[in-house]
Amino acid sequence: MTGSLTIAGLGPGDEALVTPEVSAALAAATDILGYAPYVERVPARDGLTMHPSDNRMELQRAAVALRLASEGRHVIVVSSGDPGVFAMASAVFEALEASPQWQGLPIRVLPGVTAMLAAAARAGAPLGHDFCAMNLSDNLKPWPTIEKRLRLAAEADFAIAMYNPRSASRPEGFGRALEILREAGCGERLVIFAHAVSTPKERIRTVTLHEARSEMADMRTLVIVGNSATRRVGRWVYAPRHAR
Amino acid sequence: MTGSLTIAGLGPGDEALVTPEVSAALAAATDILGYAPYVERVPARDGLTMHPSDNRMELQRAAVALRLASEGRHVIVVSSGDPGVFAMASAVFEALEASPQWQGLPIRVLPGVTAMLAAAARAGAPLGHDFCAMNLSDNLKPWPTIEKRLRLAAEADFAIAMYNPRSASRPEGFGRALEILREAGCGERLVIFAHAVSTPKERIRTVTLHEARSEMADMRTLVIVGNSATRRVGRWVYAPRHAR
Repeated sequence: MTGSLTIAGLGPGDEALVTPEVSAALAAATDILGYAPYVERVPARDGLTMHPSDNRMELQRAAVALRLASEGRHVIVVSSGDPGVFAMASAVFEALEASPQWQGLPIRVLPGVTAMLAAAARAGAPLGHDFCAMNLSDNLKPWPTIEKRLRLAAEADFAIAMYNPRSASRPEGFGRALEILREAGCGERLVIFAHAVSTPKERIRTVTLHEARSEMADMRTLVIVGNSATRRVGRWVYAPRHAR
Repeated sequence: MTGSLTIAGLGPGDEALVTPEVSAALAAATDILGYAPYVERVPARDGLTMHPSDNRMELQRAAVALRLASEGRHVIVVSSGDPGVFAMASAVFEALEASPQWQGLPIRVLPGVTAMLAAAARAGAPLGHDFCAMNLSDNLKPWPTIEKRLRLAAEADFAIAMYNPRSASRPEGFGRALEILREAGCGERLVIFAHAVSTPKERIRTVTLHEARSEMADMRTLVIVGNSATRRVGRWVYAPRHAR
């Protein structure tokens, strides 16, 4: 019996944002692995085994998923949003690289609506011009790399989507990021704080970078810093398509 | 009778990547506007009027959509991929800014799976670390701005997703973009050419930047230039989660 491994994105929270491709894959799976709050989003049924695990267990989870697939199971590793954006897909390929015996397994990656797209849609169109996406967590890279990238992104006049802006264990990083962008002359830029987008707890707030404070974000917040031309029209925020 | 305007993303091509939210909106609409090949993707039915238009007609299309909504119609402007990424959402808000009389209309933006996410999923996980997304078309910005952003993106060691890399009217820009990145020392980086992703004509090809040639892309190609750590495992290409 040949197993398979699928890495699927559940979208930002609302079930109406889960693609039919992902729903069909979930309906055919035997095992679901992922961070516990994401596994909970998958409907239980007979024949489906749930394997919730803790955050920061990505590599171990990926190795278990590969082993189960090698045993003939039809395994899905679930991520919130899109699995390829600061989520499980890279971890699975890292685990695969470390385990050549599993490199013949059938693997699929199923894309999803990543948080920045849902947040942008709620706010208007702040990603309508060139932009970058950065993971602000320094678990996986040194803080000076983050600082350098923020300065270059400001110089390039990219809008900046920030994932994982602020954690309890590392509350100071995001405040420092805001400071760096202010030092780079971006104080008048609009900043969107999108909390728990597409869930019942959704809250969207737009301020200028001068007004932005670290406490406006938590780990469920996606932050978008507009580019220098990003503007308001009524309750909407958008990046004009043209640039000088 | 109150009309409404919805700006919806149809995903990259495969109907299994259209979100249920977008499908429900299409089922309730009275009018569909968009670039003709995208309007064609919406199933025809009684009571639904199709308004296909030409490419580069974004602002005019947006103004017509607003006028129809103001007349009580339930209008959807469709984009391929996500409407907020180099697509119709910014154009609608530009048109709205120019037409204050319509600013009270109910407007919604419905996100979708943008091409770079689908392309990344097919290739592996090349967007698993910090990245940027750039529209390579110089219809809307001066070419020197594109060059400057490419140089800064290389210096930041972002992976780079390139939309609209190459058009018949402007074939030389993409070749120049590749040259700039080679000059910036990125020659060993992996480059993914994803043509018509998620359609029957899909073709994915990965080469090094040294090997990349302008003719490998057309306007239906999404190009992803990996970061300096992006690597292969078997047939997959991924960005490790860690960075130095």
